[in-house]
Amino acid sequence: MKLISKYKLFGGSQETYKHDSKINNAPMVFSVFLPKQVNDKKLPVLYWLSGLTCTEENFVIKAGAQRMAAKLGIVIVTMDTSPRNLGIKGENDSYDFGNGAGFYVNATEEKWTKHYNMYDYVYQELPVIIESNFNVTDKKSISGHSMGGHGALILALRNPSQYQSVSAFSPIVAPTRTPWGQKALKGYLGNNFESWQQYDSCELIKTATQRIPLFIDQGTNDEFLEEYLQPQRLESVCKEFNHPLILRMQSGYDHSYFFIATFIEDHLKYHSNHLK
Amino acid sequence: MKLISKYKLFGGSQETYKHDSKINNAPMVFSVFLPKQVNDKKLPVLYWLSGLTCTEENFVIKAGAQRMAAKLGIVIVTMDTSPRNLGIKGENDSYDFGNGAGFYVNATEEKWTKHYNMYDYVYQELPVIIESNFNVTDKKSISGHSMGGHGALILALRNPSQYQSVSAFSPIVAPTRTPWGQKALKGYLGNNFESWQQYDSCELIKTATQRIPLFIDQGTNDEFLEEYLQPQRLESVCKEFNHPLILRMQSGYDHSYFFIATFIEDHLKYHSNHLK
Repeated sequence: MKLISKYKLFGGSQETYKHDSKINNAPMVFSVFLPKQVNDKKLPVLYWLSGLTCTEENFVIKAGAQRMAAKLGIVIVTMDTSPRNLGIKGENDSYDFGNGAGFYVNATEEKWTKHYNMYDYVYQELPVIIESNFNVTDKKSISGHSMGGHGALILALRNPSQYQSVSAFSPIVAPTRTPWGQKALKGYLGNNFESWQQYDSCELIKTATQRIPLFIDQGTNDEFLEEYLQPQRLESVCKEFNHPLILRMQSGYDHSYFFIATFIEDHLKYHSNHLK
Repeated sequence: MKLISKYKLFGGSQETYKHDSKINNAPMVFSVFLPKQVNDKKLPVLYWLSGLTCTEENFVIKAGAQRMAAKLGIVIVTMDTSPRNLGIKGENDSYDFGNGAGFYVNATEEKWTKHYNMYDYVYQELPVIIESNFNVTDKKSISGHSMGGHGALILALRNPSQYQSVSAFSPIVAPTRTPWGQKALKGYLGNNFESWQQYDSCELIKTATQRIPLFIDQGTNDEFLEEYLQPQRLESVCKEFNHPLILRMQSGYDHSYFFIATFIEDHLKYHSNHLK
C-alpha cells in the first residue's frame, strides 16, 4: 500500500493510496478522509461509489463532504471505478464500459473476469484493507452516484447485515432494463439474462428477505432521468413489495456534483444516525 | 454576454458567461453564484481572485463556498486569471507568466499592454457588467488565493472605498521581492522598479492613507511559504505602519484548495459582516 498524496483539511486528513488488488489482479487506487477524532477513537466508515468515468478523486474534490464528515466523525472511503490501462483490448473505447466503468459487478466473460471484479473489491477486499490499516470500527454504510448509486443499492440489498444504511444520488435502479446497464451487464456477464438480475436493484427488491431502507435523491432536471435512470421503476417495485424507500425528487437539479454537494450533508447525517 | 453553463446548487444558481472585454481587448470568462434570495432583493458581491493557472472554475468546483454564500445571501463572482490563446508569442511558455497568470496588473510592455489589463478588468469593467446584469447592490468585498490573494490585497489597498472588506489565502504579499512577482512584474511592466511598487502590498501599506483591515489565512506547511510568499514581510510592515492585520498561521495546512475549503466559511462570514 503506497501513499500517493496527503492533505490536511477540516482538521483531518485526506489520504490517497495505491495497492495491489488481489481480487482485481491489478493496482487499484482509493482515498480515505480521516477526521481528527480518528486519533483518539475508532470511527465508522462510509463507502462512496462514484459514477461513470470517475476516479477516487471526483467526490473528494467536488462534493464538499469532508466538512460535515469531520463534524460527525465519519471516515469516508472512495475508490477508483475500475482498474485502469491493463492492456485489455477495448478497455478505453467508450466512457460507459471498461476503464472507469466497472459497474460494481464480478465479470464472468473471459476477457474481463480476471480484472473486473468491482463487486467483490468493494464488498470484501477494500473493507479488510481499511479495517486493518486505519483506526475504524467494522460499522459501515454505503452511498454513491449514478453507476455508483446502483453499486451502493445492490451491495446493500444483497448484504443488508454488512451495511448500517444505504443512500444514493441519481442511481441506475434498473440496469437490466436501461441502456447503460444493459451494455455493461452484457459486456461483463454475457447473454445470460438470469445472471444480470443479481445486479439489478428492482429485481433484488422482489427477493429481499431483510428490508434495508433506501434513501435516494434524484434531480428533476437530470439529463439522464428518463432514458437511463427511471426511478419510477424502483418506486413501483418498493410499493409492491412494501420495501421502505425515501425518494426525494429535487426540483431543478441535474446530474452533476453540484447536486451532490447540495444534499450530501443530509446523507451524511442520515448515515451518522445509523452508524451510531 | 453568452451563457456557457448553468447549474442549480444550494437553491441558487451557478452561471458561467463569456463576454468581450473592452479593457483586455479579448474574450473573458467569469462565473457567478446567485443565491436564491437574489430573486427577491439585491445582494452584495464578493469577488474571488484565483491563483496561477486557474480559471473561473477552480474555486467554483473545489472551495465549497456556495453552501455558506447561499445562507448568508452573498453573490460570488470568479473570473479567469487572464485572457487565453491570443497568439501572443510565449503566452503559453510557462505556468507563471502569460496565460493563467495575469497577475492582476495593467501591463505596460508593448507585447502585453493591449490584452493584459487584469487590474482594470477586476476593478472597473467586471463590476459594471455584474451590476448591470444581475440583481446586486454596489457593495463589494474581495478575496483571493496566492496570486489572487495578491490581487485582492492590492486592489483593496489602492481602492479602500471601493471594497467593504478584503481577505486572502496564502497571498503573494511582496511581489517586488519574491520570484513569482519579480518575473511577472518584469514581464508586464519592464525594468522600471518604481512602477512595480503600485502592485506590491508591502509597499502600498507604507503610503496608505485609509487603513482597510487585512484578514489573511496562511498554511504553515505551504510548499511556497518561504521562497514565494513570505508573509512575515507583511506582518512587519503592518506593525511598523500600524496597519490592521489579522494573519492566522494555520498549522499543517498546505497551498491547496483543501486549505481554502477548510477556512472559506470564516472568510465568507467576515465579509458578510462588512457587507451588511
